[in-house]
Amino acid sequence: MPRAALIGGGVIGGGWAARFLLNGWDVAIFDPDPEAERKIAEVLANARASLPALSDTPMPAEGRLRYAASIADAVAGADYIQESVSERLDLKHRVYAEIQAAVPEIPLGSSTSGYRPSQLQEGARNPGAILVAHPFNPVYLLPLVEVVPSPASDTAAIERAKAVLVALGMFPLHVRKEIDAHIADRFLEAVWREALWLVKDGIATTEEIDEAIRMGFGLRWGQMGLFETYRIAGGEAGMRHFLAQFGPALAWPWTKLMDVPEFDDELVELIAGQSDAQSGQLSIRELERIRDANLVGFLRVLKERNWGAGRVLLEHDARLREAAPDPTPEPTPETAAPMVMARMQVLPGWIDYNGHMTESRYLFASSETTDAFLRHIGAGMDYVAAGHSYYTAETHIMHLGEAKLGDRLTGSVQVLGADEKRLHVFIRIERDGQAVATLEQMLLHVDMEAGRACPAAPEVLARLMPIAEAHAALARPPAAGRHVGQRKT
Amino acid sequence: MPRAALIGGGVIGGGWAARFLLNGWDVAIFDPDPEAERKIAEVLANARASLPALSDTPMPAEGRLRYAASIADAVAGADYIQESVSERLDLKHRVYAEIQAAVPEIPLGSSTSGYRPSQLQEGARNPGAILVAHPFNPVYLLPLVEVVPSPASDTAAIERAKAVLVALGMFPLHVRKEIDAHIADRFLEAVWREALWLVKDGIATTEEIDEAIRMGFGLRWGQMGLFETYRIAGGEAGMRHFLAQFGPALAWPWTKLMDVPEFDDELVELIAGQSDAQSGQLSIRELERIRDANLVGFLRVLKERNWGAGRVLLEHDARLREAAPDPTPEPTPETAAPMVMARMQVLPGWIDYNGHMTESRYLFASSETTDAFLRHIGAGMDYVAAGHSYYTAETHIMHLGEAKLGDRLTGSVQVLGADEKRLHVFIRIERDGQAVATLEQMLLHVDMEAGRACPAAPEVLARLMPIAEAHAALARPPAAGRHVGQRKT
Repeated sequence: MPRAALIGGGVIGGGWAARFLLNGWDVAIFDPDPEAERKIAEVLANARASLPALSDTPMPAEGRLRYAASIADAVAGADYIQESVSERLDLKHRVYAEIQAAVPEIPLGSSTSGYRPSQLQEGARNPGAILVAHPFNPVYLLPLVEVVPSPASDTAAIERAKAVLVALGMFPLHVRKEIDAHIADRFLEAVWREALWLVKDGIATTEEIDEAIRMGFGLRWGQMGLFETYRIAGGEAGMRHFLAQFGPALAWPWTKLMDVPEFDDELVELIAGQSDAQSGQLSIRELERIRDANLVGFLRVLKERNWGAGRVLLEHDARLREAAPDPTPEPTPETAAPMVMARMQVLPGWIDYNGHMTESRYLFASSETTDAFLRHIGAGMDYVAAGHSYYTAETHIMHLGEAKLGDRLTGSVQVLGADEKRLHVFIRIERDGQAVATLEQMLLHVDMEAGRACPAAPEVLARLMPIAEAHAALARPPAAGRHVGQRKT
Repeated sequence: MPRAALIGGGVIGGGWAARFLLNGWDVAIFDPDPEAERKIAEVLANARASLPALSDTPMPAEGRLRYAASIADAVAGADYIQESVSERLDLKHRVYAEIQAAVPEIPLGSSTSGYRPSQLQEGARNPGAILVAHPFNPVYLLPLVEVVPSPASDTAAIERAKAVLVALGMFPLHVRKEIDAHIADRFLEAVWREALWLVKDGIATTEEIDEAIRMGFGLRWGQMGLFETYRIAGGEAGMRHFLAQFGPALAWPWTKLMDVPEFDDELVELIAGQSDAQSGQLSIRELERIRDANLVGFLRVLKERNWGAGRVLLEHDARLREAAPDPTPEPTPETAAPMVMARMQVLPGWIDYNGHMTESRYLFASSETTDAFLRHIGAGMDYVAAGHSYYTAETHIMHLGEAKLGDRLTGSVQVLGADEKRLHVFIRIERDGQAVATLEQMLLHVDMEAGRACPAAPEVLARLMPIAEAHAALARPPAAGRHVGQRKT
């Protein structure tokens, strides 16, 4: 079992601990803060609840975590060392002296946001083992780690460190020339300084600034970066067109960062050439479609969580639904017929790589239909919130056709039987009047707290029973009562 | 039917056209470019393939698109006008003069990235109707639109414009004080200038810069912005702690933007107070969990698409799978047992408002299990791509328990019977060895083009039949052969 030593256990050190442990490494951690153990346990709890959800293959057994009594104790026997102490150079130098007094040859990564590796290496016993390995919070989820060597760094140590980081599921970005704040934090610092001005000058509040980021370009940057995004923005003419269009803006006061590089042909060619090498194997149209599919995915994630841009989408749906005609006609015993309770359209998220509606979406469409019926008889969300609900006990599905993207479907309910506790229904999912699936279901009325069946409320039964009586006149569907594999009769 | 007039039909104008049309507006567009019609048709095709995927309610019928012969022709009868011509002030002024000669009272939004509304209004017949409505590419997907009035803007026109944008599913961010480049583009410009330096100085290529963004902070910014993210990074001590920690960095050369605001107590209190108002209703732990759930969602989206950070995850899975023992040993009559084919965790998108796994997700979990089994016997995606597939004909589900958020589930397969054309399986979805649902399914082997059942390929049957023979020794599950509502025996 490989072993990591972690020096410093704050938000970043705790995140490293989680990355290593959940990927099967044993971890020894040293942090003199008396609260360290509690804080790291909390980061670990977050990581255990999220990192495994990224994996579609069983993760290795979690490693063992040990709180070491000293730096020497922590690094004994370590295969890799990561330092995440406060951003003070003298402190880091003292920590490295202690580490390298014990294990001078082991690769030693620093989580520093800003120091260059040659600054970190000053006065070290073995400068070659020291490099920057700068992660991003939350360390257990974000793949980026900037690996920055100095000319004094040992190539073998760098390669060993990168192999360790890859084994943790990370993306080591090898920064070829050292520079203050590496690469990513230079952007973060530029944005931060601009943001401070906007707040100080009263242009925008912190909330307005955050909305300006997460409702727009933030969504783009999670899947493509600055240059690939702008390559697309250039349209068919690509990067050179974009550069020609926005080059002049460099001279304008669009930010307080006015110390700009000379925007000459040489720079245009350098950027356009690098962009071709990076993205030129895909056409602008292909890049657009990839970008759009990614954005749709991100937006749907946020919609499921009612957060950020997802909240905007949910509110838009609610407005559209209010403007649409009511799909639920009032039934009467005289007009007994299966009741159309839902009208749906096959959405892109419902189809598989073959363009067919995925199997589980037929049950989803049926649930939408049943839910609408339950709302209709007064057993909707308010009823559930008060502690009672109809639970599905058993379902039988006949797959009779294939729905495709954009198809409009209706879901209808025929009540096969009902009593105080039970509701037996037959659902037809139809396209143009032809069933693509039928579903037979038995639902039980449940007291949710007690966890057992109980009679439905009188006002619900008063809505349900007349429908059940009216539907008793309907022909029983041949598929009702069928078991899987039964010969057709 | 409301009508929009669009002046200028490039990438941005085309995006506006798509937003309006797909939300049921009629659109008249004027653009003298002879290629405009083709270009807009391409943007529309992208939008039709993506925007409806965000909606869970039927969208209104698409509006009609008309190419107008002149500006006056385009704006006649319009309820709202959006200008997206090139970023030249004299050109915009000429366009506004033509528009307002015809319809001076209609709200007129400009897509300008940089001009202030008071610059746009100079010399206009009705300055009050003119405002900035700055969208983000792709306009049909990203919700942000910066609405910037000047002191001369008419309040009623601003409110009408905002109502139009909300009706398009957008998020109008009202920028209270005009400033060059509004809010979001100030950040984009700062990052852009910093990026140009990094490329010019040979520190990083365009590709390395893009990776530094999309593998790290870009993912954070799609769901929380700068300040909320940093509030979390401050840990339990929150925003004031973060500010104290990173305040000194303002004096350091972490970016070429060195004209920084004075970082005094007043600024700290202003920011910390605004951050409390923005995010203070949630604890740091709650914010962490929300952030993590969002990031997991984003990362899974990218993983499904094998793109960006998702590619890193897929490669990590492949390494883990290679290192792990095979979870699907080939059964023999001596070792016959249901085969565990899938390990899953109940994700946030799988649960309903009650915190229970939604009904259709049990079938989803079963499909995942069956798909893994089909891959195991050589009938995976390649086989399907070659024209054959197993289709589910019939399913019976017993709901036996309730799975909750975060539960770890396994899906196992027991083959009840198989011949050349048919595959009869029993799936158990279990938590801690207890079934939460069982599913009995009949699958038919299908020639997809002919649309009829046919024998499976010999190499598939060679994998399948020994398993079926081994499983014949297993006890038949009591739920097999059951029909809905059958009394327990």
